[in-house]
Amino acid sequence: MRIPLDHQAEAPLYRQIESYLRKAILAGSLAPDTRLPASRKLAEDLGVNRITVETAYECLEADGLLSSRVGSGTYVLAPETLPVTAPDGGNVAWPLWQQSLPKPVADDKRGAARHPDPISFAGGVSDARLYPADEFRRVLQSVMRRDGITALDYGERNGYAPLRATIAHVLASQGLQARPESVLVTAGSQQAISLVAQLLLGAGDTILVESPTYSGALDLFRALGFTVVGVPVDEQGMQVDLLERLLQQHHPRLVYTIPNFHNPTGTCLAGARRRQLITLADRYNVPILEYDFVGDLRYDGRTQPALKALDPGGRVIYVSTFSKMLMPGLRVGFLLADGPVYDSLVRFKRVNDLATSTLVQRALESYVTVGRYQAHLHRSCQVFRKRRDAMVSAIEAHLPADVHCSPPQGGLFAWLQLPDGLSSDDLAAYAAEEGVEFVPGSAFYVEGREGTDKLRLNFVVQPPDRIDEGIRRLARALERMRGRK
Amino acid sequence: MRIPLDHQAEAPLYRQIESYLRKAILAGSLAPDTRLPASRKLAEDLGVNRITVETAYECLEADGLLSSRVGSGTYVLAPETLPVTAPDGGNVAWPLWQQSLPKPVADDKRGAARHPDPISFAGGVSDARLYPADEFRRVLQSVMRRDGITALDYGERNGYAPLRATIAHVLASQGLQARPESVLVTAGSQQAISLVAQLLLGAGDTILVESPTYSGALDLFRALGFTVVGVPVDEQGMQVDLLERLLQQHHPRLVYTIPNFHNPTGTCLAGARRRQLITLADRYNVPILEYDFVGDLRYDGRTQPALKALDPGGRVIYVSTFSKMLMPGLRVGFLLADGPVYDSLVRFKRVNDLATSTLVQRALESYVTVGRYQAHLHRSCQVFRKRRDAMVSAIEAHLPADVHCSPPQGGLFAWLQLPDGLSSDDLAAYAAEEGVEFVPGSAFYVEGREGTDKLRLNFVVQPPDRIDEGIRRLARALERMRGRK
Repeated sequence: MRIPLDHQAEAPLYRQIESYLRKAILAGSLAPDTRLPASRKLAEDLGVNRITVETAYECLEADGLLSSRVGSGTYVLAPETLPVTAPDGGNVAWPLWQQSLPKPVADDKRGAARHPDPISFAGGVSDARLYPADEFRRVLQSVMRRDGITALDYGERNGYAPLRATIAHVLASQGLQARPESVLVTAGSQQAISLVAQLLLGAGDTILVESPTYSGALDLFRALGFTVVGVPVDEQGMQVDLLERLLQQHHPRLVYTIPNFHNPTGTCLAGARRRQLITLADRYNVPILEYDFVGDLRYDGRTQPALKALDPGGRVIYVSTFSKMLMPGLRVGFLLADGPVYDSLVRFKRVNDLATSTLVQRALESYVTVGRYQAHLHRSCQVFRKRRDAMVSAIEAHLPADVHCSPPQGGLFAWLQLPDGLSSDDLAAYAAEEGVEFVPGSAFYVEGREGTDKLRLNFVVQPPDRIDEGIRRLARALERMRGRK
Repeated sequence: MRIPLDHQAEAPLYRQIESYLRKAILAGSLAPDTRLPASRKLAEDLGVNRITVETAYECLEADGLLSSRVGSGTYVLAPETLPVTAPDGGNVAWPLWQQSLPKPVADDKRGAARHPDPISFAGGVSDARLYPADEFRRVLQSVMRRDGITALDYGERNGYAPLRATIAHVLASQGLQARPESVLVTAGSQQAISLVAQLLLGAGDTILVESPTYSGALDLFRALGFTVVGVPVDEQGMQVDLLERLLQQHHPRLVYTIPNFHNPTGTCLAGARRRQLITLADRYNVPILEYDFVGDLRYDGRTQPALKALDPGGRVIYVSTFSKMLMPGLRVGFLLADGPVYDSLVRFKRVNDLATSTLVQRALESYVTVGRYQAHLHRSCQVFRKRRDAMVSAIEAHLPADVHCSPPQGGLFAWLQLPDGLSSDDLAAYAAEEGVEFVPGSAFYVEGREGTDKLRLNFVVQPPDRIDEGIRRLARALERMRGRK
């Protein structure tokens, strides 16, 4: 135990030890029943006389904070009254450098906490009840039996090789050719986006994104100090015809795009626009970061190739994940990159966090096969298609006709437009009272004042009857808000 | 399956499908026995006539790349000869932006691969054979049974609350008071260092580090484009008396330090220097990042308080990990920070990778208790003390008297100085032939030309008899090198 002692201080050493321990016990950081080191041992560690430690212990025992049990040692007792505030209180003068830090953006305060049975359409993931938790537990168990301590050591820096091979096979089965040597395993797709952004841009550099786009990417780009420029989106995805002017005007270092079942709008980039995007990126020497978070979750309509599949070589960095379909808590995503940029990304991954949990990678490799992935995908599509239909029907049945929504062909999200400039932030408050949650549109826009008349609904997390009930509640909230206007 | 089709291209659609699949099969990305979609399904997905897909399949069947099994589907066959090079070969013209990327530093090519039974003192972790793999497997199993899908979902953004409480208790039991609200769980300590560095510095800013220091931190700071300035180290750790001049001269944004059992030198920062360091950092308004990777692994001598324990409030950010003592592959580390900087770090963690695997956090929380930690620490210290003694004895017995080494009081590393300006890089080659590995000193220096006469030995990874044999081999390597000079 390393207790800070000041031999030059006026306070005697036993008092310093006593006061340190008292503070720790009262703050709860030394929990009740913690065994303290024997006085001889602590005296040795601290280089003080044994009597000094014993005196400190005795003072604390007298105050009912410690108890000596003969032959067993000295234990912390539960203090009778805990202080109301933490011991270092709120009156510390933080150093200047702390006072000048940029204020983190406050989290959006959603939540229908007051309602006894809220229905949430706010999440960004799929239905946890569909995660194969039991199967995965068995796989994890057999991997640990099979690999023993190897599963608990550092692994290869670009990811567990058999998992990289599996990822390449799964991608190929979905129409995207990939070699295991081009795959880098990351801590979820968020880290993949973060690595690419950190490598290719510095503070002050410009990035082009769809506006609206995934709020987690916006947060990242803002935290890294980038200038974020939005490209408008219509029903066919990014308006690529506006791109060339923006490329000329802003000289971006990266184009970040979600071409399939876009977050939050649910749209897919049209085929011709995909080719045009690649051509423009090539002409203006700008890399493309393709975030394909649910590209395989299509419920109807024609598929489009991944941008990466159209890449003549090294133009597109493709990022995806198993999180949305399998288990987000595992935090395993991946990227696909060709050319010199791959080695640079591996290096960035290494300096960022050395490697992603080998145990989890091994378990995932053991669980995911092409056949199992396709079966899971098929099952998910069947379930989610019904929920999409339920959402579309409920919107038609319960919401007024002037609320606009294009039925999405896949993915997780429906994107609603409110009439008459009604504010989705205001609506969220009424909705919380009625017991339904969603994400207001402004969260997804480069300029926060945009999108205030829009909102995002996740339609895959609730079963059809809850979807219907949730949209009824939303309709009531809308009605109440209009009544108050 | 999303196959890229170009309806404007000259090649007919069935040829485009055929050639895409052929490429994927020959490259191995569509593995043998993969089942292809039914022709009806693929035709629907791609928006083409069913005959088009059937024709493509038939061509591939005729070439022995596919096989139709009646009533079962179409499967990929193993191609008879695989192409020697990957299909996109080495002759792709990478885009310009790829050609201008900074070259990643080549990994040091260590390795005694030619020797049948090499002994490695090169690693940075402790002995994998001491990891509690079986116990941990059982804990993981019971956590998954207990928590079900909750263990596979995203968790709290600053880390699983019970784990943060456990970390606070373990730290308090080691003499460092901490509140769970000041703990942020990270993907290993490397991520914690990376988050602090990213938050507090931008490219071009200056960071002060001990020279030598942990090579993984040097790699990180260089990758982020920082100016790295070294503070010399002697047998009592960082030479704090040289610090003030460097603070005035370079205006660093951060001081990164390893005060306990320093990597690579094994030294501990003297008590008076600790207080002086805090005072100076305060005077010059510079935050301190204290990396305490093995602070509890003390085999003899007097303990020193953590810098964080001397912190009057918000001056020191403390980073540590369970990796070195428990299981590195779990990738769970943590930092301790007070004041506004804590929220900023939580935000940076979130944009970097959303969260660290909840499953692993829950398992670790279930496994680690103060009692178990202390027992494990006690056992590790006993084992490692013997190995330290074995290393010191072997060095005295087998190496010439002009090789200098101060016996370390704890930690993982012994730091050797070679005589007469002999080069440890040269020695590494002889050592590899003799079957022993170490890390040459230059890896740890801000200026790569320094430290060429030094080398780092990890003394905890080998049992005493292997340590003795390894040092005998090192002695032979040294003798041979001197003979050739």
